[in-house]
Amino acid sequence: MRRWMRSPGMSEPPDEFDWIAALRPLTRGHAAALDLKDDAAVLPARPGFDLIVSEDAMVEGVHFLEGEDASIVARRLLRTSLSDLAAKAAEPFGYTLMAAWPARRGWDERMAFIRGLDEDGARYGVALLGGDTVSTPGPLTVSATVYGWVPAGRAVLRSGARPGHALVVCGVVGDGALGLAAARGAHPGGDALAARYRLPEPKFVLREALLAFASASADVSDGLVADAMHLAEASGCGLRIDLAATPLSDEARAWLAGRPRDEALVELATAGDDYALVCASPEGGLLAQASHAWGIPAAVIGAFTASEGLVLTVGGREVAARRLGWRHT
Amino acid sequence: MRRWMRSPGMSEPPDEFDWIAALRPLTRGHAAALDLKDDAAVLPARPGFDLIVSEDAMVEGVHFLEGEDASIVARRLLRTSLSDLAAKAAEPFGYTLMAAWPARRGWDERMAFIRGLDEDGARYGVALLGGDTVSTPGPLTVSATVYGWVPAGRAVLRSGARPGHALVVCGVVGDGALGLAAARGAHPGGDALAARYRLPEPKFVLREALLAFASASADVSDGLVADAMHLAEASGCGLRIDLAATPLSDEARAWLAGRPRDEALVELATAGDDYALVCASPEGGLLAQASHAWGIPAAVIGAFTASEGLVLTVGGREVAARRLGWRHT
Repeated sequence: MRRWMRSPGMSEPPDEFDWIAALRPLTRGHAAALDLKDDAAVLPARPGFDLIVSEDAMVEGVHFLEGEDASIVARRLLRTSLSDLAAKAAEPFGYTLMAAWPARRGWDERMAFIRGLDEDGARYGVALLGGDTVSTPGPLTVSATVYGWVPAGRAVLRSGARPGHALVVCGVVGDGALGLAAARGAHPGGDALAARYRLPEPKFVLREALLAFASASADVSDGLVADAMHLAEASGCGLRIDLAATPLSDEARAWLAGRPRDEALVELATAGDDYALVCASPEGGLLAQASHAWGIPAAVIGAFTASEGLVLTVGGREVAARRLGWRHT
Repeated sequence: MRRWMRSPGMSEPPDEFDWIAALRPLTRGHAAALDLKDDAAVLPARPGFDLIVSEDAMVEGVHFLEGEDASIVARRLLRTSLSDLAAKAAEPFGYTLMAAWPARRGWDERMAFIRGLDEDGARYGVALLGGDTVSTPGPLTVSATVYGWVPAGRAVLRSGARPGHALVVCGVVGDGALGLAAARGAHPGGDALAARYRLPEPKFVLREALLAFASASADVSDGLVADAMHLAEASGCGLRIDLAATPLSDEARAWLAGRPRDEALVELATAGDDYALVCASPEGGLLAQASHAWGIPAAVIGAFTASEGLVLTVGGREVAARRLGWRHT
């Protein structure tokens, strides 16, 4: 970081020093943060462990609703970023933060943002290590780079799937899209469903299960089918998916009930923002079982293949995949 | 990273895959980047070394001129970010990138941005490790998180200055401000001076000298006096600065010649964007000498003190410091 707040030609109360003082508790005493008194963070090597790094950015009106409460923005940012570490079976410990603030979001909203970071920083055991805060004439734009440890060579990558490995989904699918509709008032699901969109839960409880049973893993942000295909492509495999067994919430089941089932299932499986995990596993049943043991619905919904491309079915019936952008072979 | 480009509800050619393919050469074959095929980067521990992390963000119209060439934006982003690593005596090796693109900057500008990253990535030996690219209705907003190694415990922090240590500046001061004026057409310095603002040079050549002679260090981004005071405050010291010996370019000398010298020197020393280094050193003369040996003008311009606050002079004459925001004792 060069500085925490920069407003060339302006001096506005509260100033940069108040802002850094407000951020300081977010370091949770982590030595690497140097109390936010330096331009950099210093991370000692942890022999025997790899450092996993992932970054996610969000723009107001694009990745979260315009006017969204700043504490929710902060928590959603941390959670969606940390979800990538969870997918790699990493143990999170810190993050750096980029925030570009529009003038119309004042000091109160910045404090709300800090409260959100504080709450979920404590929840997931992650410390603010540094970053950069700037002003912008545009929309609120935030980015978190998150850091976690994994035993050396054990990170669960996208590229480890092999033909014959099961495709396992851990977590429900479709609540991201339905929750976004609820948050917009376009779905009667109300606050509980909207909260699943706003505040997804990174699946860190599955870390040991992933290390034991998963050969590849990613979180569902682009959509179940798209993210499963990311695994297949990074692994040089094809993929069969049957959506009939996809884990769904009660709300998603109710939404499906009034619709043509195959099409509606495809819609949920291509909508994204679920932050379930899609995994490859030579022992899919054991991975699903471990997930259930943590209270996370899971199912084997397909398998990686030696051929190219995707075969997408519901209960054995092929369904149109052209809309997904994948070449159907 | 969750994905490289996200445009909910839109599909625009070229797409996400073209973008990632275009970014891939920027990884320079670094294994940690996983060919940008994953959601994360994997960095093996380097025993005996600390990892130094720093992040800098820039917004169009705030931190670079509106309509600035995208390749210049990319290079300025890398250089200003890497400058923080240079100040810590770190050896850089990689970066993650956040870019929020407005629709009005099309594919050609994105390619220019990549060319800029490629050019300076090669220059400084840094590899793209991951990141996130998003679309924005606002101004072009970019952020780089840069990574470097330093022998364990040897990072040159802000907090290592002690009373009696010399204040040394390595590099000229004031060209950032004059160069910005030149870039805006408000100074007759032309392209050469403007280039010093646009493309500052991180002082990596001074790494060994910093490790040998510096007790504290930071780069000059907020202004020579402000950044020197950051060292003093982080170290619990006071500071005497005499600006008479401040290293200046020929252009800055010419600019000074027509002005009241004391005031004009203070103006240059509080303007920022110079990316010189301000250092504390028990052996200030040796540090300045090493800097000269690399062709970087340097001078001892003050000393850290056991009292609080700042005493600012030019040739022994006290000059007004109230405008700097520092309490003058």
